[in-house]
Amino acid sequence: MPVEMQLSRIIISEINEDQYVFLKEVDGDRQFPILIGIFEATSIDRRVKKVERLRPLTHDLIVGVVESMGGEMDSVVITDLKNHTYYAKLRIRSAGELIEIDARPSDALAIAVTTDPPLPIWVDENVIDEAIASL
Amino acid sequence: MPVEMQLSRIIISEINEDQYVFLKEVDGDRQFPILIGIFEATSIDRRVKKVERLRPLTHDLIVGVVESMGGEMDSVVITDLKNHTYYAKLRIRSAGELIEIDARPSDALAIAVTTDPPLPIWVDENVIDEAIASL
Repeated sequence: MPVEMQLSRIIISEINEDQYVFLKEVDGDRQFPILIGIFEATSIDRRVKKVERLRPLTHDLIVGVVESMGGEMDSVVITDLKNHTYYAKLRIRSAGELIEIDARPSDALAIAVTTDPPLPIWVDENVIDEAIASL
Repeated sequence: MPVEMQLSRIIISEINEDQYVFLKEVDGDRQFPILIGIFEATSIDRRVKKVERLRPLTHDLIVGVVESMGGEMDSVVITDLKNHTYYAKLRIRSAGELIEIDARPSDALAIAVTTDPPLPIWVDENVIDEAIASL
């Protein structure tokens, strides 16, 4: 069963390659960090802080492409955790269908916070258990 | 009139924030550089060198979204140069229509080299004139 979670913290380190975002349960207290790259961390951070963008940045472009093609962003879901690597899907409604597209969680989360209101973020129960067990 | 150009060089500097890609006329000798960020330069460089990607990176995700929604990447066009900033559009064929979406040239070029064969890159004649005049 997927559980709804939300972005609770973004940790950006200037002196370290590794950046983290934390997801926390909407109706509960469980949380876990996901390791992401500096580009994605900065992209998420700017969106959360609503920094104005003069031109569409990469994640804005994805939302623009979907809307121009008549689709609508639905949600993101983190489906798997294997060998310390998270796997996610982007869900798009298009022509009455729900399409799922493989994405890295960092891209999926950056897209989730690009839309207003942000997209719901779902995480599989198994992923939460494994993520917390490996802390 | 747009002129077909191709990626001729990518210059990545480890000690400098500014990276460059060069576009060169397919049927001629004119060329000019475009200043881009390190993330986009690395993304373009990896694609040109066909570095294997275990998970879909951000620009792969854009191509995946378009294909999953039944569209097809058509081409990219660099339409404008204002205050040292280039503007581009991504062209997508979808349901018999040609859709144009605003993009930064760096994203447009990264997408152009993601597909195999690469997408045609068109540059407006005015942009070439101004770009070369400002060298």
